[in-house]
Amino acid sequence: MAAPLWKTQAQREQERALKREAVLRAAARAFSEQGFHRTSLDDVAERLNVTKPTIYHYVRSKDEILFECVRIGLERLDSASASAEAQRGGGCGLDRLIVLWTEYARIVTEDFGRCLILVGEDPLPAETRKELRALKGKIDKRFRGLIEQGIADGSIQPCDSKLLAFAAAGALSWIARWHDPAGSLPVDEIARQTIGFFVNGIGLNGAGAGRSRHAGQHASAV
Amino acid sequence: MAAPLWKTQAQREQERALKREAVLRAAARAFSEQGFHRTSLDDVAERLNVTKPTIYHYVRSKDEILFECVRIGLERLDSASASAEAQRGGGCGLDRLIVLWTEYARIVTEDFGRCLILVGEDPLPAETRKELRALKGKIDKRFRGLIEQGIADGSIQPCDSKLLAFAAAGALSWIARWHDPAGSLPVDEIARQTIGFFVNGIGLNGAGAGRSRHAGQHASAV
Repeated sequence: MAAPLWKTQAQREQERALKREAVLRAAARAFSEQGFHRTSLDDVAERLNVTKPTIYHYVRSKDEILFECVRIGLERLDSASASAEAQRGGGCGLDRLIVLWTEYARIVTEDFGRCLILVGEDPLPAETRKELRALKGKIDKRFRGLIEQGIADGSIQPCDSKLLAFAAAGALSWIARWHDPAGSLPVDEIARQTIGFFVNGIGLNGAGAGRSRHAGQHASAV
Repeated sequence: MAAPLWKTQAQREQERALKREAVLRAAARAFSEQGFHRTSLDDVAERLNVTKPTIYHYVRSKDEILFECVRIGLERLDSASASAEAQRGGGCGLDRLIVLWTEYARIVTEDFGRCLILVGEDPLPAETRKELRALKGKIDKRFRGLIEQGIADGSIQPCDSKLLAFAAAGALSWIARWHDPAGSLPVDEIARQTIGFFVNGIGLNGAGAGRSRHAGQHASAV
């Protein structure tokens, strides 16, 4: 059957959404690679082989694009943490946290998550920054909640959940800064080893006797 | 004895160096707080209660200021890692790494180190960026060297030294992003607990049986 000459309303809307996402994705890559201030909408258009007026058909401004890129990155982290939370009966708190952290590493090395980490909301006007920061606060809360569940079910050593959430977010977000997608180590393997440092610790049993002095020994570990 | 009416050459040079550092420091704070692109040299002058022409007496441009701020931040990390390396007989590799990481946390929460992490060299022209990245590479090498020494002397579990260096740098650099100097936890305490996560691990012995599957168990830990 030949394709009909006129598209339905639903088809047109879906196509428009796909094209808008392609614009946002090309911009996210350009922002991450060249920096937000050094990227013009002409650069983004060039990456898509279209003209700047075509870009304006999908977005109003460079600021709107960055807002959307950061929002999508944050939404992905939020939905990853929501699924980790919802995973009742799916293992102890630590296991769920490991699933979440692995997903976190994947997200921050993809186009929108990378743009969230490397560019972020800082270049945007105060009012829009506020909206994105509220979303960040919500995600932070979920992260801490999962850590607290792990402490409560005995899979994670008692600790300051805020500090642990930030330490893991820092270690994993940093991957976006140094990871070369053409490099030899796949993201999942980088995540596995990075998370392993936190979960198992890097010290060898019995070695480094002086270290509780410096590094705050927790409960029974080492 | 009254102060002499004319300063010596040495006094004039020292005073000039101090004033130049005050300019750089005020700019580093402004860049970290407001962003590089949103900060004008008028803003910096205002913070120092001087006029913009006074600023130009010490630096040529906003780019030169950022270059210097990032360079000073990197020099501090470099000298911290050089002292950790030189600390022969000062404990095992892990102990020396803990000293270095603690110093790292202090540096990235001070004016120049904070500017290094929050702003960095990205807004600068390609040529100057290159110079700063070479310095970064040198510091990375020292970090990895210390980790490898720790593995060799048996204080650190065998691991990918590059991944561990990045994971710790990420966790500690992240402090610059969220730490509130007016907050209740002092930086040294944040560093102690953050480093403790890495050194001792967060898992409770025997808990989370499924986790070697996800998180890469090392050697004998857990």
